[in-house]
Amino acid sequence: MYFVDVDDIVAEKIVVSKESLRGTHFRRAGPRQKVYFESDEVHACIVTCGGLCPGLNTMIREIVCGLYHMYGVTGVLGIEVRRIKRFLCSKHNPLTPKVINDIHKRGGTIFETSRGGHDTSKIVDSIQDRGINQEIRRRGLKVAVVGIPKTIDNDIPVIDKSFGFDTAVEEAQRAITAAHVESESTENGIGVVKLMGRHSGFIAMYATLASRDVDCCLIPESPFYLEGPGGLFEYIEKRLNENGHMVIVVAEGAGQELLSGNTCTMDNIDASGNKQLQDVGFWISQKIKDHFSKKQKLTINLKYIDPTYMICAVPSNASDNVYCTLLAHSAIHGAMAGYTGFTVGPVNGKHSCIPFQRITERQNKVVITDRMWARCLSSTNQPSFFSPKQLFAKIGDEKHGDNHVEDLAIK
Amino acid sequence: MYFVDVDDIVAEKIVVSKESLRGTHFRRAGPRQKVYFESDEVHACIVTCGGLCPGLNTMIREIVCGLYHMYGVTGVLGIEVRRIKRFLCSKHNPLTPKVINDIHKRGGTIFETSRGGHDTSKIVDSIQDRGINQEIRRRGLKVAVVGIPKTIDNDIPVIDKSFGFDTAVEEAQRAITAAHVESESTENGIGVVKLMGRHSGFIAMYATLASRDVDCCLIPESPFYLEGPGGLFEYIEKRLNENGHMVIVVAEGAGQELLSGNTCTMDNIDASGNKQLQDVGFWISQKIKDHFSKKQKLTINLKYIDPTYMICAVPSNASDNVYCTLLAHSAIHGAMAGYTGFTVGPVNGKHSCIPFQRITERQNKVVITDRMWARCLSSTNQPSFFSPKQLFAKIGDEKHGDNHVEDLAIK
Amino acid sequence: MYFVDVDDIVAEKIVVSKESLRGTHFRRAGPRQKVYFESDEVHACIVTCGGLCPGLNTMIREIVCGLYHMYGVTGVLGIEVRRIKRFLCSKHNPLTPKVINDIHKRGGTIFETSRGGHDTSKIVDSIQDRGINQEIRRRGLKVAVVGIPKTIDNDIPVIDKSFGFDTAVEEAQRAITAAHVESESTENGIGVVKLMGRHSGFIAMYATLASRDVDCCLIPESPFYLEGPGGLFEYIEKRLNENGHMVIVVAEGAGQELLSGNTCTMDNIDASGNKQLQDVGFWISQKIKDHFSKKQKLTINLKYIDPTYMICAVPSNASDNVYCTLLAHSAIHGAMAGYTGFTVGPVNGKHSCIPFQRITERQNKVVITDRMWARCLSSTNQPSFFSPKQLFAKIGDEKHGDNHVEDLAIK
Amino acid sequence: MYFVDVDDIVAEKIVVSKESLRGTHFRRAGPRQKVYFESDEVHACIVTCGGLCPGLNTMIREIVCGLYHMYGVTGVLGIEVRRIKRFLCSKHNPLTPKVINDIHKRGGTIFETSRGGHDTSKIVDSIQDRGINQEIRRRGLKVAVVGIPKTIDNDIPVIDKSFGFDTAVEEAQRAITAAHVESESTENGIGVVKLMGRHSGFIAMYATLASRDVDCCLIPESPFYLEGPGGLFEYIEKRLNENGHMVIVVAEGAGQELLSGNTCTMDNIDASGNKQLQDVGFWISQKIKDHFSKKQKLTINLKYIDPTYMICAVPSNASDNVYCTLLAHSAIHGAMAGYTGFTVGPVNGKHSCIPFQRITERQNKVVITDRMWARCLSSTNQPSFFSPKQLFAKIGDEKHGDNHVEDLAIK
Repeated sequence: MYFVDVDDIVAEKIVVSKESLRGTHFRRAGPRQKVYFESDEVHACIVTCGGLCPGLNTMIREIVCGLYHMYGVTGVLGIEVRRIKRFLCSKHNPLTPKVINDIHKRGGTIFETSRGGHDTSKIVDSIQDRGINQEIRRRGLKVAVVGIPKTIDNDIPVIDKSFGFDTAVEEAQRAITAAHVESESTENGIGVVKLMGRHSGFIAMYATLASRDVDCCLIPESPFYLEGPGGLFEYIEKRLNENGHMVIVVAEGAGQELLSGNTCTMDNIDASGNKQLQDVGFWISQKIKDHFSKKQKLTINLKYIDPTYMICAVPSNASDNVYCTLLAHSAIHGAMAGYTGFTVGPVNGKHSCIPFQRITERQNKVVITDRMWARCLSSTNQPSFFSPKQLFAKIGDEKHGDNHVEDLAIK
Repeated sequence: MYFVDVDDIVAEKIVVSKESLRGTHFRRAGPRQKVYFESDEVHACIVTCGGLCPGLNTMIREIVCGLYHMYGVTGVLGIEVRRIKRFLCSKHNPLTPKVINDIHKRGGTIFETSRGGHDTSKIVDSIQDRGINQEIRRRGLKVAVVGIPKTIDNDIPVIDKSFGFDTAVEEAQRAITAAHVESESTENGIGVVKLMGRHSGFIAMYATLASRDVDCCLIPESPFYLEGPGGLFEYIEKRLNENGHMVIVVAEGAGQELLSGNTCTMDNIDASGNKQLQDVGFWISQKIKDHFSKKQKLTINLKYIDPTYMICAVPSNASDNVYCTLLAHSAIHGAMAGYTGFTVGPVNGKHSCIPFQRITERQNKVVITDRMWARCLSSTNQPSFFSPKQLFAKIGDEKHGDNHVEDLAIK
Repeated sequence: MYFVDVDDIVAEKIVVSKESLRGTHFRRAGPRQKVYFESDEVHACIVTCGGLCPGLNTMIREIVCGLYHMYGVTGVLGIEVRRIKRFLCSKHNPLTPKVINDIHKRGGTIFETSRGGHDTSKIVDSIQDRGINQEIRRRGLKVAVVGIPKTIDNDIPVIDKSFGFDTAVEEAQRAITAAHVESESTENGIGVVKLMGRHSGFIAMYATLASRDVDCCLIPESPFYLEGPGGLFEYIEKRLNENGHMVIVVAEGAGQELLSGNTCTMDNIDASGNKQLQDVGFWISQKIKDHFSKKQKLTINLKYIDPTYMICAVPSNASDNVYCTLLAHSAIHGAMAGYTGFTVGPVNGKHSCIPFQRITERQNKVVITDRMWARCLSSTNQPSFFSPKQLFAKIGDEKHGDNHVEDLAIK
Repeated sequence: MYFVDVDDIVAEKIVVSKESLRGTHFRRAGPRQKVYFESDEVHACIVTCGGLCPGLNTMIREIVCGLYHMYGVTGVLGIEVRRIKRFLCSKHNPLTPKVINDIHKRGGTIFETSRGGHDTSKIVDSIQDRGINQEIRRRGLKVAVVGIPKTIDNDIPVIDKSFGFDTAVEEAQRAITAAHVESESTENGIGVVKLMGRHSGFIAMYATLASRDVDCCLIPESPFYLEGPGGLFEYIEKRLNENGHMVIVVAEGAGQELLSGNTCTMDNIDASGNKQLQDVGFWISQKIKDHFSKKQKLTINLKYIDPTYMICAVPSNASDNVYCTLLAHSAIHGAMAGYTGFTVGPVNGKHSCIPFQRITERQNKVVITDRMWARCLSSTNQPSFFSPKQLFAKIGDEKHGDNHVEDLAIK
């Protein structure tokens, strides 16, 4: 069990000036007195990449409105993967606050987005088509590149959470409730819900904590096994005997090492270079059915729910809407101040500018020796599958502290 | 195209007395002046069978409250498939309005239910365990059996609609909207949503009409084919060219004749005697992907959503709640008046008692030469696949009129 | 108590041909083989009048799409009360399916609407501005006028229900649930919810039946009194003693005769000619507070909720969406067939064309000697306030049957 | 305008050990290795005070489950203001995880709660009735008192936010959307929404930021005036001319100094000692109507929405559910470790134990010279009413830093 050191204390004030530097610090995000770019010469381009995530449209809206209202920037373009969508945006018809006024109330993105390696070249093509890059070179202009990490999985390190995550956890409740109702209504009912999370189980863990209807939460960070003492099947049998029904939440990337054919060939690398995962929800449902029907002669009623697309497509909730505004504003202020190659997000609640490499050098993962996972286990009463010692062996040294603030300014 | 006869007129008053009999009529449901049973000797048993449907708990609640409040019947038992669930109901602890007061706000059923042939014998066992049937025989008591048809699919003939249907169509919008958002956000995006409907496409048709985001609605009643001119693939290609994305709604039982291995053996008959359908949504998604990736060299982004369990598990909406009250009251009044072997439901908006055989002798199906399907086709602009003549050949003679009112009274 | 006559029967088939005429019948709505107008010469104008009602945008959308897709009519204009709203519609820029494609997903109306007598002249002005009427006269054209009754209150006679009603009852649940939760959480908690219904209590009655959390439902059709034996205060005291809390639903027009200053002068006639009602919810809340705090020395915690505007502004639900399509199509088919001066709607479930005077000569009201109100009373256990005899004295002869079908065709 | 100092940096690591003390720090919350109380001798009592707030039931559930599962404490009682509610809890029937398993899915509180000074004595009476305090004295037992601040308004200092706030902001969107739809649908439509916030405008500000449909947000912290240049009426006229409609959000406590009869007598101090506020929403609506109808001869259509009770009564959302778990666990761990007189909550995202006086010595208020309020103003484009200098004069010195960690342990 995890214990707090009796002398651990929490600082009330965490924004400090450069002189008092100790440990890693990041530049605080926000408007600077000195603006690097001339507003009327700014050409801003927005592109959305990867799968859908609640809040994409809010982010687009806030960047356009923020540039327009805070800096008077009117030349904002959206880069479309394939073609101009609807009448929203073109070279002669830039994105304006009026045009994108209501888009935050819709899910999805007004630009086409798609996982896949073709994006980069298409983005460049698109910039080229518009003559933007020639002009940049000809006039010796500087370019600021800001990224706002888009991942519904919350697997970005350093920042407190990624946008859309809160909405995703909220929407996941619906699937868990359905699984609970279905499982309760039949003899030996088992509801299995697969949630997003290729490499990190945050959505599964928070959805489990929020719902309290879950009897077992399986995440990529916490290995498990099916058969034998202390395994999943044993636990399922125990819960069915005690309670007559149960709900299992499984993150997309959980137990991938258990799935057959787990060799990573070109066939199961998708266009974005991500290893294509086998559908663990389908696999585990089949395994459970087989085990109980064939080996245990126990009739179970298993219902498998995959709400992934329904979650990704909802509009962002109020909390994520406000969050997107803050991120968009931080990005705008940072770029207008002349910084480049950075992302933005709250660190301990304070919005900061963070160099790209800080968030790409590792992934944010559920730390299974930490308190949130302990709370999750306590709420489900599920077995821990492996001993603390076994688990500890799987966790490397995650030190990455160093005493400096990186310079983000455009040279 | 369907036309209304210029002389067709609609009667304002459709409740008539027996003398003016012409065509088929049913006994009007409602309280009778003469009550057949003594309230304090009534033993009422409720059992729920089959899969989940929004409104089951409301129905249980309304039967218990209705018997209690309208007829002073206090001995109401629920028959559980396996065991007494929670503390809700037992021989010594009958269902009372107080105990079931809030159950209509939850989805599912407070009794366990399950598709399957074991139900009948278990129900009888359960009645036997409670000594109910012996007492019935010993004392020469009469038994009234009333059924309220539970099918989310709305495939019951004669009555205007089945309970839970309205809620299901409402909830299905969520999946269709998600499919629409997902498809809009990618190049050549296709959203496929499978909805309930083994033999009849009502949910698919009404959900399509309500949402207006659907480009193709496939139902069991309307045959279709995939390849060649006028086929589904051609239509998909056309829509993607025109619009860049599309949404397909497919009812559970659509196109079953096209699926491979469609021989009906014991293996794919489920415990309720229903022919187990292959997952048409998965099948059609695979077929579309194969066609475009392999044959057409066109990159499509297909997302398949199966919201079935999430729809079945929601609580009933306001409209279904009121409807369940009316059905429960009709059932109670009919049984207390001494009728047996009947079901209840509105016929042209008027609640009636209907002999069992009237609703089991055929299924309610979408009439594809009728106006609603024409409206659905007009809203999607999908092809009709077959000519009116070809379609007409597939529709048998559906005459079942005869001039009488059946006697429902207990002999 | 209400009883069904033992010989009452319900007709299965209610669409008949003219020859078999008995009682009042209406022309069946639907497409006619013979179309009266030339599609390319049709100028269609849409105007929305009165307060908001869920479904207005759906109705606009379906009229535009229906005219366009079913009859090839492209010249559809919306008449705005004040000015062209946004870029949606103008003389040179008619409403097209593309422009109004998504409007059914928003509440409100894309045209400005307002209660008030100025509408009529503004509408005519607007038509005149566009030169439509001159052209009509000059060319001797015929005009078909179709009305689709817009009232959230469901107070239209003859037709089964008005559009938006179902959505309103659904949304009203939210306020009733809040009132229930608030009342349950305090000592002697009373939640009062005012719902729409100037002259008829349908929303209050159906919302009460759907929610089951209501202890008293007050509607315009059923008179009540506050003080003394059998009065409302006595009932409130009884419920608080029994249960500790209660919920009261009161329709807008309930108990107006009890409110002080009930003389109808010009001051309280609003712009639409409607008698302005005093806020009965506020009035009754004050009366209850005064009674218990001053006279009974009982501390009550009363919370008053008026969800009117929140209900009127929601988008229509799936059921109303489909319903709006059917109404719009009936209106289009009727007008294109050359009928005028009619409204459309289902009569016993069959869509019909109904002459204007049939729906303006009286209002649809809750019949308090009928079964639905009896059910409502039974669900709340509230007192009936007046004896059946007293109530019967208040109900006039509502005969309006006659044997004919009115001719609706343009002369 | 607010600027970030170019040298401001944010610390990544903010949990430190006692030695490195600089500025105010709080003890970190969490399980301690050393437990002060014996589990089987613990008598835990829970009481909820004040008005409803989303999350109360979740908090009760998590305290009961946390004590039970983490420390084996079974003797948990709820202190009811009036009487034992339902069958949930009594001396012989303590709260157990089984009994309160589903309560987090309902709004309100399973205990009666009420604003009011009677609570304290009733709470003590209730403890006395159960003989708890005698036993405490007789056996010389120690008592740990932990408070979890319940305020939907988020007006608690030090901690990052109060529970229920996130849900309230989410639910407030519904009212703002309705006001927006209503205002858009009429000529010169104005929607006024009153939101909670007696002394601090957080809900109003965040709801405004989240919705983007608001044209003016009025909060207690930011004074405003109605008439003359730069006043509210002038801004309203401007917005109506520009846009034809507008939405105003007003916090409960905004502009109280402007309301007539603002002398604070005993009459308008409520039972909790709070100054009773006049309904600013009603007042401002009337003022606006009067101004435009009488002085400006401009017909406006104003709709006033007060969603307060509907917001307070909703169940907590997923984010608040997880948050309640963390707060409950911090409270349990702190009390079991022997601390008393403290509250819990995250400080810069890290859960901490905070002495009572730290959160009662001042209120958390929107700092109107800070960035969030600047963002809010930028999103609405409303006037600032007073110059920065005038505003600055109204803000006192808010220094309360000192270098120590207070000892919370039971002496």
